[in-house]
Amino acid sequence: MHFRVILKIIGFLLILIGLFMLLGIPFSIYYGSDDIPALLISGLGTALVGAILWITNKMEFREEITKRDGYLIVTLGWLAASFFGTLPFIIYGAIPNFTDAFFETMSGFTTTGATILNNIEAVPYGLLFWRSMTHWLGGMGIIVLSLAILPILGIGGMSLYQAEVAGPSKDKLHPRVQETAKRLWAIYVLLTLAETILLMFGGMSLFDALCHSFGTLASGGFSTKNASIAYFNSPFIEYVIIVFMFFAGTNFTLHYFALKGKPFNYFKDSEFRFYFIFILFVVLSITLYLDIHNSQPLENSFRHAAFSVVSILSSTGFVTVDYERWAPFFSEIFLVLLLFGACAGSTSGGVKMVRYQILLKNSLLELKRLLHPKAVLPVRQNNEPISNHIISKIAAFVLLYIFIFLFGSIALSITGLELSSAMGAVAACLGNIGPGLGSTGPATNYANVPELGKWFLSIIMLLGRLEIFTVLILLSPSFWKK
Amino acid sequence: MHFRVILKIIGFLLILIGLFMLLGIPFSIYYGSDDIPALLISGLGTALVGAILWITNKMEFREEITKRDGYLIVTLGWLAASFFGTLPFIIYGAIPNFTDAFFETMSGFTTTGATILNNIEAVPYGLLFWRSMTHWLGGMGIIVLSLAILPILGIGGMSLYQAEVAGPSKDKLHPRVQETAKRLWAIYVLLTLAETILLMFGGMSLFDALCHSFGTLASGGFSTKNASIAYFNSPFIEYVIIVFMFFAGTNFTLHYFALKGKPFNYFKDSEFRFYFIFILFVVLSITLYLDIHNSQPLENSFRHAAFSVVSILSSTGFVTVDYERWAPFFSEIFLVLLLFGACAGSTSGGVKMVRYQILLKNSLLELKRLLHPKAVLPVRQNNEPISNHIISKIAAFVLLYIFIFLFGSIALSITGLELSSAMGAVAACLGNIGPGLGSTGPATNYANVPELGKWFLSIIMLLGRLEIFTVLILLSPSFWKK
Repeated sequence: MHFRVILKIIGFLLILIGLFMLLGIPFSIYYGSDDIPALLISGLGTALVGAILWITNKMEFREEITKRDGYLIVTLGWLAASFFGTLPFIIYGAIPNFTDAFFETMSGFTTTGATILNNIEAVPYGLLFWRSMTHWLGGMGIIVLSLAILPILGIGGMSLYQAEVAGPSKDKLHPRVQETAKRLWAIYVLLTLAETILLMFGGMSLFDALCHSFGTLASGGFSTKNASIAYFNSPFIEYVIIVFMFFAGTNFTLHYFALKGKPFNYFKDSEFRFYFIFILFVVLSITLYLDIHNSQPLENSFRHAAFSVVSILSSTGFVTVDYERWAPFFSEIFLVLLLFGACAGSTSGGVKMVRYQILLKNSLLELKRLLHPKAVLPVRQNNEPISNHIISKIAAFVLLYIFIFLFGSIALSITGLELSSAMGAVAACLGNIGPGLGSTGPATNYANVPELGKWFLSIIMLLGRLEIFTVLILLSPSFWKK
Repeated sequence: MHFRVILKIIGFLLILIGLFMLLGIPFSIYYGSDDIPALLISGLGTALVGAILWITNKMEFREEITKRDGYLIVTLGWLAASFFGTLPFIIYGAIPNFTDAFFETMSGFTTTGATILNNIEAVPYGLLFWRSMTHWLGGMGIIVLSLAILPILGIGGMSLYQAEVAGPSKDKLHPRVQETAKRLWAIYVLLTLAETILLMFGGMSLFDALCHSFGTLASGGFSTKNASIAYFNSPFIEYVIIVFMFFAGTNFTLHYFALKGKPFNYFKDSEFRFYFIFILFVVLSITLYLDIHNSQPLENSFRHAAFSVVSILSSTGFVTVDYERWAPFFSEIFLVLLLFGACAGSTSGGVKMVRYQILLKNSLLELKRLLHPKAVLPVRQNNEPISNHIISKIAAFVLLYIFIFLFGSIALSITGLELSSAMGAVAACLGNIGPGLGSTGPATNYANVPELGKWFLSIIMLLGRLEIFTVLILLSPSFWKK
């Protein structure tokens, strides 16, 4: 383990985070809010701690980072960001309780969007901007993590989706990571700006438009309004957000190809087709149900269905309507949707479509294999054969995910939450979605979750965001042996 | 396909079934019930149809049966049994509706135990005996199927648990099947007799003791009483049934070794240990909860917890208490338990412990594999390494199972059932357990499920009983090609 290198990198991260905290100040000045001292102290303090770590830890030129260092950097990075990220909330006093502040910031950096704030609109502008910024920074981290770092670490059998970097057999982080990251971030920034302009066109202020674009592209879900997107009462804004939530759930390399003039690559990608058709099917089914049972215009039913489904499946968590009130069984339907997630290589959380798709293909192929026991019939994804080794890795991930969901729900319910709400909360936090069910559902928030439950859910968010194994591996004794 | 051989075997099966129908007549005579004509007509009629099929279809001596024939025989066998098995109920008029009668008989032969009878005690003795007999015959079929036939057909990656027969590479049914089946049936009969004697010792009549032993060893769940086991109000009887339900959920080859003087083989088997510890953990947790929240003696809490948990996990479905009323969240807990099942090679249904165990081991090993990417670290079960090929087969099965559970629940809810009851019903029928949740739960039955839903659930029971693939493969076009 190269602890000095690790500390130096965490230091660098904290300098960045500190500087980003200051970006809310212009809005504080413009709106005359009184949170400038809190932002200044937090931002400069965080950057100072970062600078000390950076300066005191020397790294030899081109010192190589191992996989183990990688695991530790990723988990420590998210923890350090969530820890220092609480400072503005605590110093200002908007969230005086540390547990709450940590939950809120972890929810931000993991792009979950679960909130403990009962009155979001009472929080000053600069802090709200920082709150949405945690999403955006978390999303940036996830893009480079999921498309460049995790495949090298070999997590969850996703390495095959990574043409840009070397396979999982290499033990060193690849230098091309930086190149890949830069390109993907450019797309991320571009999409954020595009949505911001469209939202302003739809009537949002620059402030609201930026905050909601941060929340959308990161598939986060923090809003600046108590009523979330319902506040704006604008079909145009809702459609814009539906489209960009859908984009946020798409593999960013596909956006990259589209911008390079290959827009048809979207539908050449097997996972994207699955994602698209799955959403279409669920949205149209729910639209049909709502149209039969509600006396609203068809467009209304479609918009509410599309917004809710895309919001949950992309793991964003914005809300326009309390879908649990459509009918009692929608709680169960949305509980299932909470366990999906969108595409790999996006900012979305959860299991991801491609894992289910490959396992489902494997299940259906099994019928053929039984009929032709001597034939070699591998699952194919984008025309590439997928080995049983990868299938076994994917199965390992999905089973562990469901295991954590089930036992986490029971554990959380012991802290005092009703079991169905606990199931919703764990599914929503593990999938980095935000709103769960019942007392943690779309019509409410996480304020009333018991203290212990908030810590538990903070860890669950981190586990989900870092694809479980990245965090769990740190608990393995053999990780720490030479 | 050797259709003549297939028909001949189905004919043989029907002769047996017809003869077994007559076995209830002594009880009808003893109790003076008026169902003797119905049993005679049904029994002799079924045997006659069987005899015609047997005689008109010639089979060359030692004509070989292929795997494809095997699939067809198994599915057709269960369908034919369930079809002809309805005759006594319909001719007598105890269940005049064919849908209901088919549901009840399929529930019997698949050892599910879900009933549509609102007043079981109004049904005459001979018919009730036949009803319990369908369980027992179904259980006999399952033992030979799961331990001798399915491994040859290569279903669900279970072939490795079969030391007695050849591996899945052979294309012909192994002649040793007969030998294995005989030994296992002897154990099945022995255990049934042992339970019958103990239940009589506990105060049951021979009739009730036999019927309930049939229901226990087959992990069925049909009772002769409306209140199921609660009727007898006898802790002794409940403990006897707990133990035998537990036995019914144990791999029958372990019983075989035990009877050959190797009782310690139970705990040498990895799946058995998992099954045992899992049950112990759940029972003790629930006992603790009940002891804290109910003002009953500890023994009461333990007995009710043990009975309910063993009944569901062994996929039997006998009832002593409405566990859904312990607390609202017990519905969710039992819904999860409905998705487990007991040991492979037992009469229990569902996914089975060993599949979850292997997948779970695979998930935990993944952490080690990430740390030592170059090491070969296979999952081991009973000290045998398990290839990724098998892991992929098991994942294929489990995913398909959960997929059918989820989409089946939604489909069933469209027929008019509330979604949570539909989920309970599909989980309970797919796992061949019996009582589901809510309106199909332990305190009620399946009488009010809509007509279409009953057909749907009948198919679900068959799918679950035959480990899904056996049935689905018949729907594949390439199955029917030369």
